[in-house]
Amino acid sequence: MSTRRQPVLGILGGGQLARMLALAAAPLGVKTLVVDSAADACAGQVAPLLQADWTDYAALERFAAEVDVVTFDFENVPAETAQRLAERVAVFPNPRALAVAQDRLAEKTLFRACGLDTPAFVAVDTREDLDRALAEVGAPAILKTRRLGYDGKGQFRLRSAADADAAWAELGAPARQHGLILEAFVPFERELSVLAVRGRDGDFRTWPLTRNWHSDGVLSLSLAPAPDVGELQARATELARTLAERLDYVGVFALELFVRDGVLLGNEMAPRVHNSGHWSIEGAVTSQFENHVRSVLGLPLGDTAARGLSLMFNWIGALPDAAPVLRTVDAHWHDYGKQARAGRKVGHATVCAGDAAALAARAGTLAAALGRGAQAAPALALLGR
Amino acid sequence: MSTRRQPVLGILGGGQLARMLALAAAPLGVKTLVVDSAADACAGQVAPLLQADWTDYAALERFAAEVDVVTFDFENVPAETAQRLAERVAVFPNPRALAVAQDRLAEKTLFRACGLDTPAFVAVDTREDLDRALAEVGAPAILKTRRLGYDGKGQFRLRSAADADAAWAELGAPARQHGLILEAFVPFERELSVLAVRGRDGDFRTWPLTRNWHSDGVLSLSLAPAPDVGELQARATELARTLAERLDYVGVFALELFVRDGVLLGNEMAPRVHNSGHWSIEGAVTSQFENHVRSVLGLPLGDTAARGLSLMFNWIGALPDAAPVLRTVDAHWHDYGKQARAGRKVGHATVCAGDAAALAARAGTLAAALGRGAQAAPALALLGR
Ligand SMILES: Nc1ncnc2c1ncn2[C@@H]1O[C@H](COP(=O)(O)OP(=O)(O)O)[C@@H](O)[C@H]1O
Ligand SMILES: Nc1ncnc2c1ncn2[C@@H]1O[C@H](COP(=O)(O)OP(=O)(O)O)[C@@H](O)[C@H]1O
Ligand SMILES: [Mg+2]
Ligand SMILES: [Mg+2]
Repeated sequence: MSTRRQPVLGILGGGQLARMLALAAAPLGVKTLVVDSAADACAGQVAPLLQADWTDYAALERFAAEVDVVTFDFENVPAETAQRLAERVAVFPNPRALAVAQDRLAEKTLFRACGLDTPAFVAVDTREDLDRALAEVGAPAILKTRRLGYDGKGQFRLRSAADADAAWAELGAPARQHGLILEAFVPFERELSVLAVRGRDGDFRTWPLTRNWHSDGVLSLSLAPAPDVGELQARATELARTLAERLDYVGVFALELFVRDGVLLGNEMAPRVHNSGHWSIEGAVTSQFENHVRSVLGLPLGDTAARGLSLMFNWIGALPDAAPVLRTVDAHWHDYGKQARAGRKVGHATVCAGDAAALAARAGTLAAALGRGAQAAPALALLGR
Repeated sequence: MSTRRQPVLGILGGGQLARMLALAAAPLGVKTLVVDSAADACAGQVAPLLQADWTDYAALERFAAEVDVVTFDFENVPAETAQRLAERVAVFPNPRALAVAQDRLAEKTLFRACGLDTPAFVAVDTREDLDRALAEVGAPAILKTRRLGYDGKGQFRLRSAADADAAWAELGAPARQHGLILEAFVPFERELSVLAVRGRDGDFRTWPLTRNWHSDGVLSLSLAPAPDVGELQARATELARTLAERLDYVGVFALELFVRDGVLLGNEMAPRVHNSGHWSIEGAVTSQFENHVRSVLGLPLGDTAARGLSLMFNWIGALPDAAPVLRTVDAHWHDYGKQARAGRKVGHATVCAGDAAALAARAGTLAAALGRGAQAAPALALLGR
């Protein structure tokens, strides 16, 4: 029998997304090589790690020579880095798709071109732009950096035009670098996300819509499938498909949505596996991580149907006690192997059940045991408990 | 916030069992360190690997210093190695339990002491012993090495007493080293296994009985939960519990059983996660790998209930084409990252479904696409297809 060579997936960034991608790649016989500038990047516990900066092109050259496909755990990889790699090896999603998703202005412009409405927005580069934008968009509003924001970072909420100076004091410096965007604050009824995957052959699938709750701009809780979505599911799927096809996107992405007056508005697109899809590890037939690996390697995609209902709790800053989770039937613990630090995503837990009543009972008891009643409350209310 | 140190699980042996243990350990925040004499041991793709022989005590000393708990991917670790490690670090299962499970004579003697009947057996150390044993046990019979056998290796099947010389020609040499055992050949109705786990606190659980089919002494196919087991489930659970308590066993083990005239007979015990429990990765609420990690680290055990039905195909020698498996709904591909070699376990696939009819349809279509109709046939017949 001839010797075989296993395919190698290269991942830029070695955080928890790379870690969960590597864990999903292994059963497929796919090896992983991670690049990160931190020696203790948590994906390095489950896959070889090449310690290098995004701009260490010599190291990236060695990396490209060792892998079959490159993908991202982190969307803010410099365009130049993605472009240089793409000249040497297959890179998915492609650098153009990555560039659009890195820029809130380009992203929202594309949403509109695809027929997805967005909150009112105006580009802001100078202090005068901000006044003009506020006059156009109105208050309350959110000023955001166009680039490099995540987990609510790089944002300033303005209750009225009187907050303009304070907002500028905070975001004037990034404005000079990459520009800002002012968005109308949307008093949304709910936040949803649609996770989607597109294969190298164009095969396209979405997971059921996920209902999300944020706290201080950071995802706190996700419920999937989102209840009572009616025809929003079909609409979100079609919008995601249109976006993916326009970008010739390959891989998993998330489209974050607001619902206002029952209508979908596009917030942003994450060109990678996404925190609101973590429930799919246990709660779907095929997880977002496995389907991302399959898609970028050109393998057939797996079924994205949900198994029952899932509720995901994000652990921000530090982990709670694991024992109550481990003792809960069909609850699943995910420790990312990171050091605790304020605001940092260090793990999550997913509670699964066959129906809403069982999920409410299980998650309610668990949340009480963890002292996380407030975190769980919005989902429990919805599940009728 | 204080810095945390993640627990480290040490595994002796770096094959597919260690690989799947490491993949299950990571979400629990547990790091893995594997020892194997082969530089390309497949678990080394997902965890750091210390390349050393079982008898390299200096290396094992370094290993013991780096890990919190030691466990096994391979039961034939020399007793001396396990004992030396146990003087330095917690070793689960304990060396005595390991020693019993390593010896077919000690194992079957224990089964009987626990009230589990076995095929008739007699210890064989010399050529004369073999004649005496054949007179006692009758033919057909199986001559087996007491130690180091696996996957049907170290066995000789005798149709009649006339085969004694041929059997001795093959197994006379191992007889002088470790002794042999002659067993009556059991014309069993079926083969079952019960997977069980016992925690450091004595908490004990079993997964539903699994129905197994072997080919040339190697596991080929497993169906779980085994259909039509009636009260055999409760009986197998009680026997496994008795065994575990007698051995003060901590961790997962498998008890391989024959059913003859509706009665359970003990074949052997595997003191580790077991091939017939691979279906539990997708087919049970908690997999055997996760519960083994939980148990040896002293964490609460997870629920062992099955989700629907699962059929596991073993891939022996070489992998078939992955694509038909990847295209089948709720079928799961497991490539161990090993080189192909005759008789070697290189991967498996598990097909899951909510009921017998759906499983039969799904697995039947898949087996046909893979050209594996013969491998699937006994399970499909049972599932009514
Ligand atoms: N225009 C808006 N109106 C209302 N809420 C918003 C708006 N923009 C952001 N938010 C809230 O802040 C969260 C984070 O903002 P987002 O733009 O998604 O940034 P990030 O890239 O940090 O996820 C959103 O999920 C939502 O809860
Ligand atoms: N006494 C027996 N009677 C009938 N079949 C047997 C007997 N012993 C072993 N076999 C068959 O051979 C297979 C492998 O034998 P086993 O003793 O379990 O060795 P191994 O350690 O290689 O798994 C069993 O699962 C069963 O199918
Ligand atoms: Mg967002
Ligand atoms: Mg056996």
